Amino acid sequence: MSDGAALPNPTDLRGWMRQDFPVLRPQPTRWHDNDAYGHVNNVVYYAYFDTAVNGYLIEACGTDIRELPAIGIVAETGCRYLRQVAFPEHLDVGLAVARLGRSSVTYRLAVMPAGDDAPAAVGRFVHVYVDRLTRRPVAMPEVIRAALEPLAACAGGRD
Amino acid sequence: MSDGAALPNPTDLRGWMRQDFPVLRPQPTRWHDNDAYGHVNNVVYYAYFDTAVNGYLIEACGTDIRELPAIGIVAETGCRYLRQVAFPEHLDVGLAVARLGRSSVTYRLAVMPAGDDAPAAVGRFVHVYVDRLTRRPVAMPEVIRAALEPLAACAGGRD
Amino acid sequence: MSDGAALPNPTDLRGWMRQDFPVLRPQPTRWHDNDAYGHVNNVVYYAYFDTAVNGYLIEACGTDIRELPAIGIVAETGCRYLRQVAFPEHLDVGLAVARLGRSSVTYRLAVMPAGDDAPAAVGRFVHVYVDRLTRRPVAMPEVIRAALEPLAACAGGRD
Amino acid sequence: MSDGAALPNPTDLRGWMRQDFPVLRPQPTRWHDNDAYGHVNNVVYYAYFDTAVNGYLIEACGTDIRELPAIGIVAETGCRYLRQVAFPEHLDVGLAVARLGRSSVTYRLAVMPAGDDAPAAVGRFVHVYVDRLTRRPVAMPEVIRAALEPLAACAGGRD
Repeated sequence: MSDGAALPNPTDLRGWMRQDFPVLRPQPTRWHDNDAYGHVNNVVYYAYFDTAVNGYLIEACGTDIRELPAIGIVAETGCRYLRQVAFPEHLDVGLAVARLGRSSVTYRLAVMPAGDDAPAAVGRFVHVYVDRLTRRPVAMPEVIRAALEPLAACAGGRD
Repeated sequence: MSDGAALPNPTDLRGWMRQDFPVLRPQPTRWHDNDAYGHVNNVVYYAYFDTAVNGYLIEACGTDIRELPAIGIVAETGCRYLRQVAFPEHLDVGLAVARLGRSSVTYRLAVMPAGDDAPAAVGRFVHVYVDRLTRRPVAMPEVIRAALEPLAACAGGRD
Repeated sequence: MSDGAALPNPTDLRGWMRQDFPVLRPQPTRWHDNDAYGHVNNVVYYAYFDTAVNGYLIEACGTDIRELPAIGIVAETGCRYLRQVAFPEHLDVGLAVARLGRSSVTYRLAVMPAGDDAPAAVGRFVHVYVDRLTRRPVAMPEVIRAALEPLAACAGGRD
Repeated sequence: MSDGAALPNPTDLRGWMRQDFPVLRPQPTRWHDNDAYGHVNNVVYYAYFDTAVNGYLIEACGTDIRELPAIGIVAETGCRYLRQVAFPEHLDVGLAVARLGRSSVTYRLAVMPAGDDAPAAVGRFVHVYVDRLTRRPVAMPEVIRAALEPLAACAGGRD
């Protein structure tokens, strides 16, 4: 039986800074992003990731991606929390593409306070494209691929 | 620069089933756990994890863990989504301890529909204990360690 | 121009207790229901209301109400907060029908800690039924009306 | 026993438009603000209200209001939903003060799509100030009152 705990960390983006992300999405915080400890709750970072990915795709594709024949279903996510942030801080979410496959895409993400070049958290987000009705894996729509290829080229050249 | 995307997955719990988790926490869904695709949004699974870990600790410790001199801050989380679930399903969250350190603990988690032995999602959740006021790492409180040792022994024996 | 602030309060349910609600729905709290003040955030009570109404309807109708030709769209909500509650408390949501119209229904709601007869909060929730596709008001489905009539009779007799 | 359902509606702001609100706060939507019906869930509007009120106070007071000797606890909220909005729309939240008391304040609020003068939803939000430790009602801090008086004068003149 596998012991995941011993394996290297797929959200390890040490050394990645603001300028390494080809897309930056502004992300204001909300009052109740904070939890009882007075900082943004660990769960909420994934709402930032989700919003950055889908917001970018909708804008870059110029279409409502939810109505395409194939939709992106989340297969895996991860986050490492490096420094705490809190409402009312304004944040930016950095977005890059680590791997662009036929029916899936792996994003690298980072959350940075506005005006700060170093991530407060780094993440990973995998979309698998499925038929909107049957929910079976299919090739990603061409309009999605066209929106992602510039980001993949950018990230790929850096590894 | 590291390329996390190529590394093995630390939330890989293939083969883990309901009976492998020493603690099970019931987790009803809410209407708005579902997103526009009609299933529980990827973000919400982390709310299930967060609630299972802290709910277990509060009950097992018999004290308000938020008032202890040291509190658990989330350092890392991850989730793999295997099958979709949706409101109004009732879920159970399985909880195990993969690694128990001096000031940190790594949990393994799974989300299962009630009555189903196979996980719909598996996760990983790392707490680092810090001084409640200075937020600097310290040894975890003894009452926390006592609550976790039975779970660690259980999981440790299985690897 | 109307000054709503001077008007009586439509969520005034003074005197309503646990036994006045014909339906009670258990509602566990989650860790991040609490906000920076350490109690359940005002927003979250509406998630309890939303879940109680839709959860009751799905169970009582024995069907997926989201797939009916007409769906309930929320036209108005309100809440008065009487005492604070906090995770990890277990809550119950009381549900009654104050008014049952041709295409709309007004619910009365209360949030009570398990084992407590007095509400910690009272609410109001109005559903208007609309055609699922055109989103124009229509008569509510018969299966919905049948589920609500027993609750309306109950509340109506008490005014 | 009161029948709230028959009473006039305290969130009735018919005729109120964008220009009637002395404060406007930008509010981007998030992917999971949408629910299974593909529009912003009724609960989420209250997160917009909560964020607008507290965000305004923090900026206008120039201090962390959560650390003042008295904090604002929410006593009552309400919302009427006039037209649906959805991610990825950008919204603005209008903020006015309907009544400024010794220890409480009643806000009027509206949610408007950016570029639209007519509210998609109107709301009401009552803060009661309590001692931060004992949670008993006290006079609101002077720094809060100073931030609210300009808004009260503005709204008061319009009734």
